[in-house]
Amino acid sequence: MSVFTPVSEDQLAAWLKGYSVGAPVALEPIAAGIENTNYFVTTSQGRYVLTLFERLPASEVPFYLELMAHLARHGIPCPAPIAGLDDRYLSQLNGKPAALVTRLEGTSVEHPGLRECAELGGLLARMHLAARTYGGYLENPRGPKWWRRAAADVRPFLGEAALGLLESELACQAQRRFPDLPRAAVHADLFRDNAVFVNGRISGVFDFYFAGVDCYLFDIAVCANDWCLVDPERDCALDEGRTRALLDAYAAVRPLQPAERAAWPVMLRAAALRFWLSRLHDLHLPRPGELVKVHDPEHFRRILELRAAPGARAPWTG
Amino acid sequence: MSVFTPVSEDQLAAWLKGYSVGAPVALEPIAAGIENTNYFVTTSQGRYVLTLFERLPASEVPFYLELMAHLARHGIPCPAPIAGLDDRYLSQLNGKPAALVTRLEGTSVEHPGLRECAELGGLLARMHLAARTYGGYLENPRGPKWWRRAAADVRPFLGEAALGLLESELACQAQRRFPDLPRAAVHADLFRDNAVFVNGRISGVFDFYFAGVDCYLFDIAVCANDWCLVDPERDCALDEGRTRALLDAYAAVRPLQPAERAAWPVMLRAAALRFWLSRLHDLHLPRPGELVKVHDPEHFRRILELRAAPGARAPWTG
Repeated sequence: MSVFTPVSEDQLAAWLKGYSVGAPVALEPIAAGIENTNYFVTTSQGRYVLTLFERLPASEVPFYLELMAHLARHGIPCPAPIAGLDDRYLSQLNGKPAALVTRLEGTSVEHPGLRECAELGGLLARMHLAARTYGGYLENPRGPKWWRRAAADVRPFLGEAALGLLESELACQAQRRFPDLPRAAVHADLFRDNAVFVNGRISGVFDFYFAGVDCYLFDIAVCANDWCLVDPERDCALDEGRTRALLDAYAAVRPLQPAERAAWPVMLRAAALRFWLSRLHDLHLPRPGELVKVHDPEHFRRILELRAAPGARAPWTG
Repeated sequence: MSVFTPVSEDQLAAWLKGYSVGAPVALEPIAAGIENTNYFVTTSQGRYVLTLFERLPASEVPFYLELMAHLARHGIPCPAPIAGLDDRYLSQLNGKPAALVTRLEGTSVEHPGLRECAELGGLLARMHLAARTYGGYLENPRGPKWWRRAAADVRPFLGEAALGLLESELACQAQRRFPDLPRAAVHADLFRDNAVFVNGRISGVFDFYFAGVDCYLFDIAVCANDWCLVDPERDCALDEGRTRALLDAYAAVRPLQPAERAAWPVMLRAAALRFWLSRLHDLHLPRPGELVKVHDPEHFRRILELRAAPGARAPWTG
C-alpha cells in the first residue's frame, strides 16, 4: 500500500476549487507507486491522477512537472500536468507538495512482443527528440555519482562474489564514461509497468520521477534490460529479435551514432548496475517508514553478470 | 469548400518530420471553416487538426495558439497546439503559417437542451477563470472599434429601417460601454458548431480564431444569442429556461457581479450587433477569393430588434 497521506473527498473538493477541471466525481487511492501518494481523480471534466510528493526534494519537483508538460505539448503521450488558477503546476495539499496530471488510457504489457518493443522504441526516440528543447536541468539522480555513494553504503552487506562484481563493474564504468554521447532529459526508469498500450499501440508512458539528464543510450539500455529479456524469470539474456525491434524502431526516428553503437554493451551494464545498486540499497538500508515491497536485487545482479561476461554479445554490436 | 491551400500526403509526411507525433496515417480535408484551410490528420500517435492560416495576420496567430495552449494546460478541453522540434507552435507549410492541434472527440448539438446549456455555462466559467492568468493581449478584433468601421462600410447597402436600427444601436452602445466589467481573453464566437459533446457532457470547444480580450459577459451573451433561442428558425426570443440554465451553471463557478447583471440586456444587444455587422459585411463586401457560404444577416437583425425592443426582458434581470 502506498497512500502515505490520506486525502478525503471534502479536502479534494476544496483543493479542486483552485483548478479549472470541474467538480470531483470520484477519488480512488492507487496502490502502486513507491515514492509518492497517488489517487485517481474523476471530475465532471475528465480523469486525472493526483500525486502528493512524499520524498522528492521540493526543489526538484518542478523539473519533473515541467518536463512532462514539455513532452505533452510536443505530442508525447505522457501525463500532462494541469495548471491551477494561479498558473502553477505545483500546489500544496495536506501539507505536501501536490500536482494534478491527466490520466492515461491503456494497460501495461507484462510479456511484450516484437510489436510492443518496436512501439516503445519509436516513442522513446520521439521523446528524446522532443526533450532536446527542454530547458530544465537535473543531472540523473541515479547516475555515476550516486552509484559511488550507494556502493559505499551497501558494501558491508555483500558477500565476496557480489563485492568482486561490484568493484570490477564500478572500475570498468569509471573508465568508460561517454561525455560526448548525445544527451538530454530522459525518463531513465521506463520499465514495462510505466507504459500502457491500447490495441497494440503505445498509448502512454508515465512515472517520470527518476528522470534526469543523461545519455539517450542509457534510457534505451534501461528499457532493453526490462523489455527484451528472453524470460525475466529464467533467462536474463537479451532476446535478439525484441532487442533489434526496439533498436531498429528507435533508429528509424533518431539514427544512432557510431559512438552510441560502440557504447551499447557498456551502457547495458551501466543500466543493470544502477538498478542492482538501488535494489540493494532499498533491501539493506530501507528508509524509515518504508512500506513498499522490496524488489529482489539478485535479478539485476544476474543481468549485470550476463552483460559483463567475457564474450557477451549485445544485439546490434555483435 | 474551404481548402484554399491543398496539402499532399508527401508534403504532410515531410512536414511532420519536424514534430514528435509519428508518421502520418491519414489526411482528410475539412469542409467547414471560413477563415483557414483545415485537415484532419491521423498519425501513428494520435488524431490532430492541421490548420493553414489563410487570412489572419501572422503577428496575431501566436495570440490564438498560445491562448489555446494556456487553456489546454489548465484542463480546458480545447485544441492543444503541438510544439515542433524547434519548440514552436507556429510553422510554415506550403508558404502559409501552419499549426498542428489535437483533435477533439464528440459531436455538435443543433438543438441544445437545459443540460447542454448548463454544460456550456460551467465550461465557459472555468475557461474564463483559467484565462485570467493568460499573458497575451489582443483586443477583441470584432469589438466596438471594428463595429464603427464595419458600419461605415455597410451603410450604403442598408435600407432606411435597417439604417435606423444600426444608428440607434451604435449610439446606445457608445453610451453604455463597461470598462469596469471583468475581462480577459474570451472565445467571443462560441456558437453551437464550435462545441462538441460526448454522452451529454461537453467534450470540447474550438475555433478560437475570433478570440480577444473583452468582457466575460460579452462571451456569455454571444452564447445566449445562439444556444438559448426559443427557435432559431422562427422565434429569436431567449428561452428563459435554457438561458437560466446557462447563466446559473456559469454563476455556480464564477458568480456574476451586480454590474454584470445590470449590463446583461445591453450586452445581449452588443453581441447581436457584432454578428449582424459581420454578416452584413460578408454579404455586401466579400473578400476577393471568398468561397464560403454567407450567413443571412437578417437572423441577427431580428435578434437585435428583439433585444432592443422597449420592454424586452432578459432572463436574470427581469
